[in-house]
Amino acid sequence: MRKLFNLVKTSTNSRARAGIIHFNGINIETPVFMPVGTLGSVKAVDHRNLIETDFKIILGNTYHLYLRPGNEVMNHFGGLHKFINWDRAILTDSGGYQVFSLSDLRKITEDGVRFQSHIDGSYHLFSPENVIETQRILGSDIVMVLDECTPYPSEYKYAKDSMDLSLKWAQKSRNAFDNSSTRWGRDQFLFGIGQGSMYKDLRKSYVQQMVDIGFDGYAIGGLSVGEPADMMYEMVDVCTAEIPEESPRYLMGVGTPENILEAIELGIDMFDCVLPTRNARNGQLFTSKGKINIKNAKYKFSNDCIDENINAYASNNFSLGYLRHLYISGEILALQLGSQHNLAFYKWLVVTAREKILTDDYRQWKLEILNAMNQEII
Amino acid sequence: MRKLFNLVKTSTNSRARAGIIHFNGINIETPVFMPVGTLGSVKAVDHRNLIETDFKIILGNTYHLYLRPGNEVMNHFGGLHKFINWDRAILTDSGGYQVFSLSDLRKITEDGVRFQSHIDGSYHLFSPENVIETQRILGSDIVMVLDECTPYPSEYKYAKDSMDLSLKWAQKSRNAFDNSSTRWGRDQFLFGIGQGSMYKDLRKSYVQQMVDIGFDGYAIGGLSVGEPADMMYEMVDVCTAEIPEESPRYLMGVGTPENILEAIELGIDMFDCVLPTRNARNGQLFTSKGKINIKNAKYKFSNDCIDENINAYASNNFSLGYLRHLYISGEILALQLGSQHNLAFYKWLVVTAREKILTDDYRQWKLEILNAMNQEII
Repeated sequence: MRKLFNLVKTSTNSRARAGIIHFNGINIETPVFMPVGTLGSVKAVDHRNLIETDFKIILGNTYHLYLRPGNEVMNHFGGLHKFINWDRAILTDSGGYQVFSLSDLRKITEDGVRFQSHIDGSYHLFSPENVIETQRILGSDIVMVLDECTPYPSEYKYAKDSMDLSLKWAQKSRNAFDNSSTRWGRDQFLFGIGQGSMYKDLRKSYVQQMVDIGFDGYAIGGLSVGEPADMMYEMVDVCTAEIPEESPRYLMGVGTPENILEAIELGIDMFDCVLPTRNARNGQLFTSKGKINIKNAKYKFSNDCIDENINAYASNNFSLGYLRHLYISGEILALQLGSQHNLAFYKWLVVTAREKILTDDYRQWKLEILNAMNQEII
Repeated sequence: MRKLFNLVKTSTNSRARAGIIHFNGINIETPVFMPVGTLGSVKAVDHRNLIETDFKIILGNTYHLYLRPGNEVMNHFGGLHKFINWDRAILTDSGGYQVFSLSDLRKITEDGVRFQSHIDGSYHLFSPENVIETQRILGSDIVMVLDECTPYPSEYKYAKDSMDLSLKWAQKSRNAFDNSSTRWGRDQFLFGIGQGSMYKDLRKSYVQQMVDIGFDGYAIGGLSVGEPADMMYEMVDVCTAEIPEESPRYLMGVGTPENILEAIELGIDMFDCVLPTRNARNGQLFTSKGKINIKNAKYKFSNDCIDENINAYASNNFSLGYLRHLYISGEILALQLGSQHNLAFYKWLVVTAREKILTDDYRQWKLEILNAMNQEII
């Protein structure tokens, strides 16, 4: 596999680690949080805000972008970077998760999954091969393989069969990737995904077999799907133990600030989650002192800013009283400022985590910050 | 009256004029377009975008801000500028228009207008005096008198009686303003409003009587309410002829780019309108070559930007294909970029108008740009 990850430092008392992912002239310090831009836009946040907060990589979603605007449009514009005018990195999820969570009818075979669009009910087939092809058209820096996101809870047999199928898909994806090439002059890297529901032996075996196939990085999928947090951490622990040290490890769709800090301690390098932007739209703001439910009447006369510890425009320049007014009044600016802040908070969280790993103070800091955040200002 | 307006140049072949409004350390070049920030936020646009586009003055609305967040909150925060963290100028409309357009039940007497809140049905009285008091609390740089926005169409007698009542209110407003003082150390200026429906003699007499009372500036209200454009221009013409040259003239709630250019030619200095932001939210973009209905399928593969003549981030950095995709997908970023662009276009329109007035080429330029804009790209 090509080397896209440099390990800089591992904690002495945990698996927490700091590294750098580098490709296409971009250096991404890890642990990293990647904002989710499903349809080619991080909701309510413009590109300049993302650059100002120094996000180097965002997500796009193959399922959504394939359905709308579609491969023909994406091909015309020369890929997702050019389409949305973003020259930093993009990771595209394969769309497997969305096929299983959004579309009603679906039929899974060794060839792939047949499903109906959640937009207009039209029929489509996602195969390991055509999902690679679509991501070649998207031109994402990091390409994800198609997998079945095993539902939670699942019987052992279902999880095992699902794993066996997804492993076949993974090999097909690997082959399709190796037999195709980048379309827009940008290096692309292929990540495998490990599932296995909540069964440690399946999780372990799955990751081992993915490593045998060989990918540029390894993702852990099918977590934060309703299971208790401790169970999630157990599964992460099993997986990170099996992923080679020199490979980036990506925990998909996770999670709360606490989830992220615990997973960093277990050796995860990369995160994505809709939580900061989605919760901002609902009026929940994350801060270094806990969560703020900004619509609460107690903020009506509050002169405090959201969080003086976060160095971001939205975090420091407006009173909670004004922000509450914007939320209560249904002003779009509320969503803009809330989303900007929550993303800046997540950025601060992983940047600070990295600093603490580098000085080998991670565990102590994690306990302190979790304690401070659990004061529940709501 | 205090001098807040310097006339810099009047066209030789029309009443079009360039000037400067100055107060509280702010210089506002006229003709000026003022973005509408009804509830203390210009919808979908953050303050930094407004500053980047160099808007020096925005609107707030007394009716809306009185109901939500209310005078107690506004008093606590030290006025609207501090509440929203905006140190440039603010003009607050008196709320008369909203009482007559939004609230169901209302009863008008010489004392004021009793109405029900459109939010919760609660009863309130707006009097000429308490509307001044609320604007003292808001601390707006330009304060508007309470008036009845005469409905269109109105019988002559209704319009005459309405005028007589509003003139009494205007005198009461003047007195209340003179007998109160600024609360937050910011100079405040009082503008009168002339109504008169579509009757030239009422319009003329109304403005004359407002001038007799004496205000820092004069607004023309009750236009762009459904009448033909030519009728609006006739009324504007009658009014601007009566407003002293040394006073700023403000045409309220107008309008389309064409309306604005025609009214500038008739001697108007100040404009406000929700059109650029509201239409942006509906997918209509104004450009120097005409209007774009961005949801139209013809833009699916368009590499063009919105308008290369407008020097603004949203106007130049994204393809119509991407913008269409954002609109069709219901992304909030569409509203942000569309609103930013439309405001930048309105800014460009009045800034260019001013340049052309200064070089005495206004009329010729107006014909050319109207011709270009009528190419209807929709």
